[in-house]
Amino acid sequence: MRSESLDLKQIKIKDAFWSKHVNLVKDSIIPYQWDVMNDRIADAESSHCLENFRIAAGLKEGEFYGAVFQDTDIAKWLEAVGFSLAYCPDTELEQTADEVIDLIAKAQQEDGYINTYFTINAPDKRWSNLCEGHELYTAGHLMEAAAAYYQGTGKRKFLDCMCSFADLICDTFGTQEGKIHGYPGHQEVEIGLIKLYRLTGERRYLEQAKYFIDQRGVGENYFLKEMAEPGHQLIFPEFHDYDPRYSQSHMPVREQNTAEGHAVRAVYMYCAMADLAYEYQDKELMAACERLWENITKKRMYLTGGIGSSGILERFTTDYDLPNEYNYSETCASIGLALFGLRMAQITGCASYMDVVERALYNNVLAGIALDGKSFFYVNPLEVWPDACMERTSKEHVKAVRQKWFGVACCPPNIARTLASLGQYIYSFNREEKELYVNLFVSGEAEIDMGKGSMHIRMETEFPWKNQVSIQVTGVPEDGIRLMIRIPGYAEEFCIRNGQEKIAFENNKGYAAVNVMADGSYEVSFEAPAQFVRANPKVRADVGRVAFVRGPLVYCLEEIDNGENLSALYVDTEQKLEEEMSELFGGSVILHAKGERVVQASWGEELYSARKPEREPVMLTAVPYAFWNNRGRGEMAVWVKER
Amino acid sequence: MRSESLDLKQIKIKDAFWSKHVNLVKDSIIPYQWDVMNDRIADAESSHCLENFRIAAGLKEGEFYGAVFQDTDIAKWLEAVGFSLAYCPDTELEQTADEVIDLIAKAQQEDGYINTYFTINAPDKRWSNLCEGHELYTAGHLMEAAAAYYQGTGKRKFLDCMCSFADLICDTFGTQEGKIHGYPGHQEVEIGLIKLYRLTGERRYLEQAKYFIDQRGVGENYFLKEMAEPGHQLIFPEFHDYDPRYSQSHMPVREQNTAEGHAVRAVYMYCAMADLAYEYQDKELMAACERLWENITKKRMYLTGGIGSSGILERFTTDYDLPNEYNYSETCASIGLALFGLRMAQITGCASYMDVVERALYNNVLAGIALDGKSFFYVNPLEVWPDACMERTSKEHVKAVRQKWFGVACCPPNIARTLASLGQYIYSFNREEKELYVNLFVSGEAEIDMGKGSMHIRMETEFPWKNQVSIQVTGVPEDGIRLMIRIPGYAEEFCIRNGQEKIAFENNKGYAAVNVMADGSYEVSFEAPAQFVRANPKVRADVGRVAFVRGPLVYCLEEIDNGENLSALYVDTEQKLEEEMSELFGGSVILHAKGERVVQASWGEELYSARKPEREPVMLTAVPYAFWNNRGRGEMAVWVKER
Repeated sequence: MRSESLDLKQIKIKDAFWSKHVNLVKDSIIPYQWDVMNDRIADAESSHCLENFRIAAGLKEGEFYGAVFQDTDIAKWLEAVGFSLAYCPDTELEQTADEVIDLIAKAQQEDGYINTYFTINAPDKRWSNLCEGHELYTAGHLMEAAAAYYQGTGKRKFLDCMCSFADLICDTFGTQEGKIHGYPGHQEVEIGLIKLYRLTGERRYLEQAKYFIDQRGVGENYFLKEMAEPGHQLIFPEFHDYDPRYSQSHMPVREQNTAEGHAVRAVYMYCAMADLAYEYQDKELMAACERLWENITKKRMYLTGGIGSSGILERFTTDYDLPNEYNYSETCASIGLALFGLRMAQITGCASYMDVVERALYNNVLAGIALDGKSFFYVNPLEVWPDACMERTSKEHVKAVRQKWFGVACCPPNIARTLASLGQYIYSFNREEKELYVNLFVSGEAEIDMGKGSMHIRMETEFPWKNQVSIQVTGVPEDGIRLMIRIPGYAEEFCIRNGQEKIAFENNKGYAAVNVMADGSYEVSFEAPAQFVRANPKVRADVGRVAFVRGPLVYCLEEIDNGENLSALYVDTEQKLEEEMSELFGGSVILHAKGERVVQASWGEELYSARKPEREPVMLTAVPYAFWNNRGRGEMAVWVKER
Repeated sequence: MRSESLDLKQIKIKDAFWSKHVNLVKDSIIPYQWDVMNDRIADAESSHCLENFRIAAGLKEGEFYGAVFQDTDIAKWLEAVGFSLAYCPDTELEQTADEVIDLIAKAQQEDGYINTYFTINAPDKRWSNLCEGHELYTAGHLMEAAAAYYQGTGKRKFLDCMCSFADLICDTFGTQEGKIHGYPGHQEVEIGLIKLYRLTGERRYLEQAKYFIDQRGVGENYFLKEMAEPGHQLIFPEFHDYDPRYSQSHMPVREQNTAEGHAVRAVYMYCAMADLAYEYQDKELMAACERLWENITKKRMYLTGGIGSSGILERFTTDYDLPNEYNYSETCASIGLALFGLRMAQITGCASYMDVVERALYNNVLAGIALDGKSFFYVNPLEVWPDACMERTSKEHVKAVRQKWFGVACCPPNIARTLASLGQYIYSFNREEKELYVNLFVSGEAEIDMGKGSMHIRMETEFPWKNQVSIQVTGVPEDGIRLMIRIPGYAEEFCIRNGQEKIAFENNKGYAAVNVMADGSYEVSFEAPAQFVRANPKVRADVGRVAFVRGPLVYCLEEIDNGENLSALYVDTEQKLEEEMSELFGGSVILHAKGERVVQASWGEELYSARKPEREPVMLTAVPYAFWNNRGRGEMAVWVKER
């Protein structure tokens, strides 16, 4: 049996590092997105999202406006609201959400179908463009939202709506004669269906998800067939030379060995594959998940947990191709990677998955949002020279400063739901084995229902600034539990004390397994000194460079601390990195290292010359990558030349 | 008075370095392109170019096929033929060309208009889309072709056709009421009109060229106005958010300080500006040319003479933004830069312009064509990792191997006409000052008409492999001439001997000025040892790296000589570069340097780690960049890490 995340209702986060980010969701992002969806933000693009639902519901006259997947705005908002209400009830917000759900229900067609784009624009074209139409993708997000809302509030209305839509999908797609033999152009519905199954027990939802995974990439490509239909019209004209690899439909899913195509599509699919591998105890599918995880994390992932090396098509490219200044590394893709890794950790009980999850959450994902919660990165480069990030150039996708919420937005609400559901990553519980996993070190507490009575766990830590974690367990049942405390891959001298006494533990797949027979306190401590990290020399972009890493955090140099032209800096890796607890970013450890700078003045004005410019000693300062670009526009670099 | 290139008829090239390339034009490229234009090449895209003319001429029924500028295929072919016939008469080829010209004449409309796209597709839409229609661009190439053909054969028919078209253009465009106040979306007609003026003495052509330059970017942008017309249809949908900077129409031409937008458009415009600055002795325009030249060559040019840092829109970006592996550096843009530099050298008498021209011709331009003349690079990166140059990614424009001729092709015929007219770069003659400039060191001979009698110059050299040039001058007129021998910027110990005797010379703006009063021989010699060259540290891509340069040639490392992963190599710049005269590429100097390689085996399989991989000593081998990718697919790098 796998371990499972705790219900968010049972978790309270009160953490020096995370709480300020998590609180942004309720205090800032949910209200702001509500205004965006209602077209009340003057300088943001119009969303029209609620208006589309009103029109589809027949409450208003008008035309559909926005992207084909515009409905997902409301889905992701409701999902974040559902998560938020779970740990922080709010009557007013819940009432607003209920009204939105009423609206969605009104826009639902008699047979269960929900999609304002097709309902308004082309009711007869339903399911005719699975490749681009995003109906199943949108359905999936709505299902996830309904699941979260049900879990957060106990209210079934939205869940029932989505079950009815799921029923329609089950009736519509399948191998049977008369059904559509297709699959989604953007994976997501699989995750949604599995969540509905897990909440309702309705097995056909699970089987439908399995169908979508099993059918994908088998035989003649469904999307190419669709496009060859007479009169077929493209929604996105750039798809005229569609490559099935883009949507991971180029070969049967369980035969895939390398992460290909659009990174978000890929990791959402891998999440569903992991879920199905567990539910069906499908070893072949599990092996595919493991291969794909290995391929990503050993060959196609940035140090920051970013994935997707190409700005064009936001996609994976080839092994070790990890350029730093024109990559995509979409925030949503890292979120998907974290979701995939969490599933793999829970199924296998291996802590190494959580090392990657932690890396993604503490770096690429967190960098996606400003400290004030008001602007966002979609693209997360590891090196930025703002002057060269020009529109209408090869780097047009790279933004030097975070952008405001857009009318069509995937990353901001995805960050919101991730922060709002951070609790799912912190603990997992294996009910059968009575194993309580501590995956992330985040202060707060949780309640675990043990059947008869409940157990309580409290964590106190200043991680990642300090590597001590105090864990208090109360309400331990008579027959005890096993506390499974993750030993991070970067931890040295990991030890657990009970009072003054060091306790022995078994290293169980990277978790310190502690048999807990009675209430008690455990002091976990380890060393995770800042260190210089290098990349495999096959990563051509990083040869001769080092990154500064401390625990889960990747650091970067910023122009504001180090002057302009970060490419002219070298770091002396013979010297130790110095750690300083600073006031920056509300209190954070920053790093200093000795280095050298090429002296521009020793060069002159020539563009090329045989001259060798001088270097002067400098002290370099590095700050957490997650917090870059919170002090104005400037250069940034993760990988620094090694002297 | 400026110096002028000699008539190509008066020049014979017989050079160890250049002849094999120049001969490709007649032996291979002209016949091959003829087949392409006649749609006879099985595995090349269909050109339909001649067929379009037959349809426009009413000789055949059918539809236009190809790009709006498809007619330029024939123009560039005829221009190359004109150049080729000048120095290598060929009755059969001339007859073929005459037939093509007859066809063009038949496709010409009564009022002089020639353009098969609009004639066939939309005769009523003439001049209605100057931004994208390419009518004036096509006209310019046809004018240049007509000029070359007249100069090569003495036949006026094509020239007369184009004068009649030029007359129509003069009648159509201008500031006067009733005329169109526009200018070309892609500059080129200005060059063509000036060539017609210089051959025919018809001053209105010159004035028309001046109009196009003076009008450009003045007041409301013409192209944006065009696009705002009701019912305006885009030819290239990607231009929906057109930025006038793309076509250098964002501000008045003579106020421009930085090279902006599409690189080929830019340099073609600068050529016309230089011509006009000379013809009108327009100091303001000349100052603009000098500013733009400075901006390019001091801040926006690759070591190889490439320009255009962005793959998207093939454009300039910002100062010092010179990425090596995803730049554009279009072959045509370097050709345009050479044409611009030649004009500036001839007007100013400054040799430094020719340093850049030589750099462009010997590197970026020559790299554009395979040694067998059968494949071509449009994009000329300075670093290539073939596996990562994937379609549908940020590097989709970068090709790891040269491509066959395409149906729509600018670079291959542009290389052809450049090689066929190489003679124009070698010598210039200032008739007033009786100054004969030797700009490039290329073996061969030339005849200069001196009014009464003619003078003869013969050059013998194995440059660039050896830095000795023997110059023989006979038929020197009684009052003598000044021989102006370029002192390359990279030359050391430049000296000229007459027999055994070193002769004194004045350094006149970088030319060694030798008063020649009688027939005689001069032995020019200089040192140009291979050296390590660095870039201005503001070029972020190149900090900590060196390139290997010897005389005009930039060198590169190739995988075939240095193994895979060129990024893992370091060069020891304390050691001297060794030169070896090798058999490679039909005989060439290759370079060797001591260096180190990161040992992959000392790393392992991790993607990231604190480990520091070992390095082992290696000997690096570098070959001329111009000849890279003539030995199969593999990695290439110009800039190598400095140990």
